[in-house]
Amino acid sequence: MKRKYRASGAAVGAIAIGLLLALPATALAAESDHGGAARNEGDKSAEVSEAIVAGPAKNVILLIGDGMGDSEITVARNYVHGASGVFPGIDALPLTGQYTTYSLDADTGRPNYTPDSAATGTAWATGTKSYNGAIGVDIHDVDQPTLLELAKIHGKKTGNVSTAEIQDATPAVQVSHVSQRKCYGPEATSEKCAADARENGGKGSISEQLLDVRPDVTLGGGSASFNEVAKAGAYADMTLFEQAQLRGYTLVDNADELAAVSEANQETPLLGLFTSGNFPVRWQGAIATEGGADAGPLRCEDNPERLSSGLSLASLTQKAIDLLDSDEGFFLQVEGASIDKQDHAANACGQIGETVDLDEAVRVALDYAEKDGNTLVVVTADHAHTSQIVGGTPPGLSVQLETNEGQPMIVSYGTAPAGGSQQHTGAQVRIAGYGPGAADVVGLVDQTDVFFTTQRMLELNGTFAEQSADAAAVVPTEPVAPKGKVTVGASGFRGDWTAEVRVAGQDPREVDVINGAFTVELDAPSATGPVEVSIVGKQSAATVSASFVVAENGGGVVTPGEGSQSGQSGAEEPQSGAAAAGIGGLSHTGLDGNLIFAIVLCALALGGIGYGVIRSRGTRVAVIQD
Amino acid sequence: MKRKYRASGAAVGAIAIGLLLALPATALAAESDHGGAARNEGDKSAEVSEAIVAGPAKNVILLIGDGMGDSEITVARNYVHGASGVFPGIDALPLTGQYTTYSLDADTGRPNYTPDSAATGTAWATGTKSYNGAIGVDIHDVDQPTLLELAKIHGKKTGNVSTAEIQDATPAVQVSHVSQRKCYGPEATSEKCAADARENGGKGSISEQLLDVRPDVTLGGGSASFNEVAKAGAYADMTLFEQAQLRGYTLVDNADELAAVSEANQETPLLGLFTSGNFPVRWQGAIATEGGADAGPLRCEDNPERLSSGLSLASLTQKAIDLLDSDEGFFLQVEGASIDKQDHAANACGQIGETVDLDEAVRVALDYAEKDGNTLVVVTADHAHTSQIVGGTPPGLSVQLETNEGQPMIVSYGTAPAGGSQQHTGAQVRIAGYGPGAADVVGLVDQTDVFFTTQRMLELNGTFAEQSADAAAVVPTEPVAPKGKVTVGASGFRGDWTAEVRVAGQDPREVDVINGAFTVELDAPSATGPVEVSIVGKQSAATVSASFVVAENGGGVVTPGEGSQSGQSGAEEPQSGAAAAGIGGLSHTGLDGNLIFAIVLCALALGGIGYGVIRSRGTRVAVIQD
Repeated sequence: MKRKYRASGAAVGAIAIGLLLALPATALAAESDHGGAARNEGDKSAEVSEAIVAGPAKNVILLIGDGMGDSEITVARNYVHGASGVFPGIDALPLTGQYTTYSLDADTGRPNYTPDSAATGTAWATGTKSYNGAIGVDIHDVDQPTLLELAKIHGKKTGNVSTAEIQDATPAVQVSHVSQRKCYGPEATSEKCAADARENGGKGSISEQLLDVRPDVTLGGGSASFNEVAKAGAYADMTLFEQAQLRGYTLVDNADELAAVSEANQETPLLGLFTSGNFPVRWQGAIATEGGADAGPLRCEDNPERLSSGLSLASLTQKAIDLLDSDEGFFLQVEGASIDKQDHAANACGQIGETVDLDEAVRVALDYAEKDGNTLVVVTADHAHTSQIVGGTPPGLSVQLETNEGQPMIVSYGTAPAGGSQQHTGAQVRIAGYGPGAADVVGLVDQTDVFFTTQRMLELNGTFAEQSADAAAVVPTEPVAPKGKVTVGASGFRGDWTAEVRVAGQDPREVDVINGAFTVELDAPSATGPVEVSIVGKQSAATVSASFVVAENGGGVVTPGEGSQSGQSGAEEPQSGAAAAGIGGLSHTGLDGNLIFAIVLCALALGGIGYGVIRSRGTRVAVIQD
Repeated sequence: MKRKYRASGAAVGAIAIGLLLALPATALAAESDHGGAARNEGDKSAEVSEAIVAGPAKNVILLIGDGMGDSEITVARNYVHGASGVFPGIDALPLTGQYTTYSLDADTGRPNYTPDSAATGTAWATGTKSYNGAIGVDIHDVDQPTLLELAKIHGKKTGNVSTAEIQDATPAVQVSHVSQRKCYGPEATSEKCAADARENGGKGSISEQLLDVRPDVTLGGGSASFNEVAKAGAYADMTLFEQAQLRGYTLVDNADELAAVSEANQETPLLGLFTSGNFPVRWQGAIATEGGADAGPLRCEDNPERLSSGLSLASLTQKAIDLLDSDEGFFLQVEGASIDKQDHAANACGQIGETVDLDEAVRVALDYAEKDGNTLVVVTADHAHTSQIVGGTPPGLSVQLETNEGQPMIVSYGTAPAGGSQQHTGAQVRIAGYGPGAADVVGLVDQTDVFFTTQRMLELNGTFAEQSADAAAVVPTEPVAPKGKVTVGASGFRGDWTAEVRVAGQDPREVDVINGAFTVELDAPSATGPVEVSIVGKQSAATVSASFVVAENGGGVVTPGEGSQSGQSGAEEPQSGAAAAGIGGLSHTGLDGNLIFAIVLCALALGGIGYGVIRSRGTRVAVIQD
């Protein structure tokens, strides 16, 4: 009774992505046949059951189509693969659901039904609902730890890829905490997020915070902000690019340089910024206009400004995965940013091309995950958007396209007038998953659930303080000559990426913590006697202290060695390490250990980690690998 | 690190549905807390795994929210339960996916990206994509068997419930086959679907076909069409209500009468039509206007015209389930029709109230399914629609509501001008399932997959012809007096709901087949000798024939009895049944059995069953249960 013709689907699936010529009429079968349009091959119970894999996962890849609501997915699928077709990536994830995307009113904490990309990104990056414009902070502007940050302090490699400026909301939410999403660089931050500005004791602009967080791989646009000059901090008066270079970043800005990069890690993190602003889009076509549908059907065209194929979102995703794939596992966020931006601009072709771009990136992620066998891939949107498929010319803006299967499709943009920015919409959107933990996307979930699923799958259970619980200072145990060079350091600061080194009578120094450790060269004081060194992890607030002795007969530069942790701070006998050095144990700067631990837990329980804001105006210090 | 506050969800869940007063501000918790908005309690792998249940299922309940795209769901959830809330019914189904809803161009068979409710209903009811306006026919206007029809011929009880006119597209697709959805009654059919009209040899209007198909339970609006008069057929010149009564239907038109019905089956099917047209909606409020959002926020109000609570969609669903619940199992379709109609009218409050109405019906279905343990519940929409949640007043029509949680929500209607009908949209929509076979909804599926899943779960594998393979005629074996009364009948016509009885020299008579059987009283011819009786199942095209003898010394009325099936047609020796009667075996009207079977199979393979159009002008005959 039932004939199933899969031929039409297969034929459509074979269309090369990006093919812009109409197919001959015979390429696509009519689908009136009973069963011809069915997508299931039969009972899917076994298939769905098999797709449910318990955690933990070694890796998580989160791919975001900005503004990619169900309507945007359908618009693009219809155009490229036909109504009965499938996206090789986006549609291939076996487990699916819907999630809510609302944000909050900053003043009342009540829902805002039309979220922006900052609040939505903050929701999945931190598990915390916040206000439109918020980057990594809650409605009280308290910083919330992000998935990328937590992955990093748990020893995972981390990556952040976008076709937007890397300071745009979606990539920014993983690496920064500011009260206004436009605080890309030092200039905007002084103006729009004064409290966050470095010169005011804040953590700085999105770009500066990105450099602090030090993901292993960062790829996107937005180099303009990195040409700005830091106003304060260890790198004051340098451009952010100069700062990045000093701090060990590998900087690339074109496909060839990117292709040459074979390693990215905490010693040499990769920062690839390929455009001054956002990436040029893949396809172009007529902007929707009033009555525009009547002028169609039109075809989309390649955008000649598009970056080379080595810089497509799929290529960047592949490169990031290649660089992050490791024994320790990784967390990678990938954003197809301009689905949203082209939807705002009422540009259907732009929007469709970007969806195709994201789809290819999803396919790259799935190919890796299928081979790896221990990777959770989540694909979703941050919020729904304006574009709608309609049957007749609507009163607002519209365009009529001729799809690859030769059929007319009218796309309506009805939430802003011509020249305005089409609005985000508040509909729940699709979320889909593959791999360990993917079952968490099934049913009705919230955007914040992505945070908790990822946290569970990657076992990111430690706080900053807990991850730095084994922190120890490393100081010389033999006397140092007055005004001599002395190298101090620390280990076990796993919950930190920057630390402050304080020596009595000297400006504090801000240092990068690499895999929990650092060493720094200081000038010994001229006065003889014991010198207290205290080290504060800037993310964990963990503080350790130890002292060395300045004596007239002291030596020159003393290189500290490794040793076991001591019970209390203070000078110790030389340990069995290679060099003569003392290890300062975890000190609580005068407070009882259990008490400060309880305070930290309490602060966490109250809504996240309030990183102690510790001013730092020290000069740049060399960073040495432990 | 994570505090989960489920309080806000719980508080919202406790709001009585339909509550129209704003809650006090304190009733809803702020949700800025880390984790406060998460919906998952933890890893959902086990929960989702447990929700995957293999078939077959005893019962299937399919609930359709007409026009209930993801945006419409979110609009209603935000208003009633808050952004973080859940619908007790719609959101409670454990397995979820998206499905494509496109229809086809009738001329080319190519996709139409903006479907109507006729094509979409036909897709899930028959597994066949068709054109906008098509009711139960493919693009070549060939009838396609529906789920309700197939369930019926496989011995399942069947029900069809809607808040619309019962002839509206969604309910119509299960019980009729016409080329134009507006062919509600004999008048419209003569005008718009002439080929389908009874007077032209067609199967008649949607209402007339409904009476033929004879679902056990039919509840909805649309009584107006039943006051029309049949133009041809066995019930010509009677109103359809008179016809229904003669054919054994229990007719009710109010809640009290409905409550009194304790049984609905093939002998006494229930036809409850409670309004002349569509049901009045539940809630009312301001229609969206240009700039309307600026006048808000407004609240929705109860519609005083709403039918009594005994006629809510939930009540009708409960009644249908009560009447259908049986050893043999059932198929029930329930439609919340006016989400779509109110969306067309740019009436957000109307749309929301209807979504709540459907949600309550879903809850009824889930409550039954959870107790029963062997029922598949599927909840979905036929197509997406216009309404969108936006943050600012759009250029088109809009309204601003104040939700139950006290927040403003702007709903935009941008696909038609003021006074026009807002358009359907082509986005993929949510599909959700519970029970055996529900895993089939996960991932990306097509609307037609619902047909195949239901067919598999209810094991509706036989064709009309196969289900009538045991058909047998029952005729007197003792001579009958000339012009005497003679009762003939048939059994085993399981694949039919009407049959035609042909006696040489007499007008053919159309009879209702009840559970595969019927008896009918005829006038014997005046001439003596053998009289051939042939019986044709109108759905199966199965034909059986037998003969009785007219003799001067024949008896009066002869009541046929049961007996075993014979190998060939013709008069037989009396069997061991209670009365003297012969059984005509399956006859192929002169064609070889294998040949005709092959022809039937071939017709099926070519796209469905082309019911042989058999004119019938016989007078009404009494129907007797076998």
